[in-house]
Amino acid sequence: MELFEAIHTRRSIRKYEDRPVSDDLVRELLAAAMSAPSAGNAQPWQFIVIRDKALREAIPAFSPYAGMIAKAPLGVLVCGDLSQEKYAGYWVQDCSAATQNLLLAAHAKGLGAVWTGVHPMAERVEGFRRLLGLPEQIMPLAFVVLGWPAQAAGPVDRFNPARVHADRW
Amino acid sequence: MELFEAIHTRRSIRKYEDRPVSDDLVRELLAAAMSAPSAGNAQPWQFIVIRDKALREAIPAFSPYAGMIAKAPLGVLVCGDLSQEKYAGYWVQDCSAATQNLLLAAHAKGLGAVWTGVHPMAERVEGFRRLLGLPEQIMPLAFVVLGWPAQAAGPVDRFNPARVHADRW
Repeated sequence: MELFEAIHTRRSIRKYEDRPVSDDLVRELLAAAMSAPSAGNAQPWQFIVIRDKALREAIPAFSPYAGMIAKAPLGVLVCGDLSQEKYAGYWVQDCSAATQNLLLAAHAKGLGAVWTGVHPMAERVEGFRRLLGLPEQIMPLAFVVLGWPAQAAGPVDRFNPARVHADRW
Repeated sequence: MELFEAIHTRRSIRKYEDRPVSDDLVRELLAAAMSAPSAGNAQPWQFIVIRDKALREAIPAFSPYAGMIAKAPLGVLVCGDLSQEKYAGYWVQDCSAATQNLLLAAHAKGLGAVWTGVHPMAERVEGFRRLLGLPEQIMPLAFVVLGWPAQAAGPVDRFNPARVHADRW
């Protein structure tokens, strides 16, 4: 899929077919995520691919906006790894760029995905931390739910000229 | 350009030709940026396109890693707009996703770009705030320097299987 088409037609997809997503495909998505830029090229990220049914069914209790994971084939928890940071304080930006790459890659492969927010909501951070046994330096940032789309979503044009400023505010 | 090619061949470009970048092209980059997902679809972003020479030459004093802006045709300051947030605390992630779209769009158009970090470094935030007259609710996050590339950069494969975990840490 062409880049601009991917960017402009990617939408949040929250309903999925009951059909698996292969490990090879997930690997391609993660390779795209890991190609993101990062401060000092530190690549301060870790990815947890969650397919286990009991885990998937436990997530909505602490992250209600991620309720669709119970019926999705998998989700990817994108985490910052504070021990890998070269310039402290940029891990959120680095991991967000990686997450955006992952969403675009999923869309280009025909998958549907939705970015559900984790950090900085303490209840969600602690929920994932307990459920998955994350060490202290691993910060869950975003939980991307993935599957083959069972809903249609057309493109939207969000360009807003009022948000563009020349040289000064 | 195909999406995966764009993702895997995008690199930070810090040297540019002495050649202008049109407003129409910049508009396409900003439209790509504004197509990013955001928490609650709040789109809490603002973009300042900096072409003015005096402004460009003033930036390296408070943001030394953005020194290349002095000789670049333009830069885009990606800002969070706290007054637009629907779910507080997600503006950094939203604006980082927008920045990543902008970088990919620039690369697909043959431009070179580099993401230079601003937030959370107080000196850089205040530097941009004073220079451009940013109101209190506008948070400069990332400064993307742009131009026609005057350096070559090949693809790299950053996939690291050690960063992938199945179901638990």
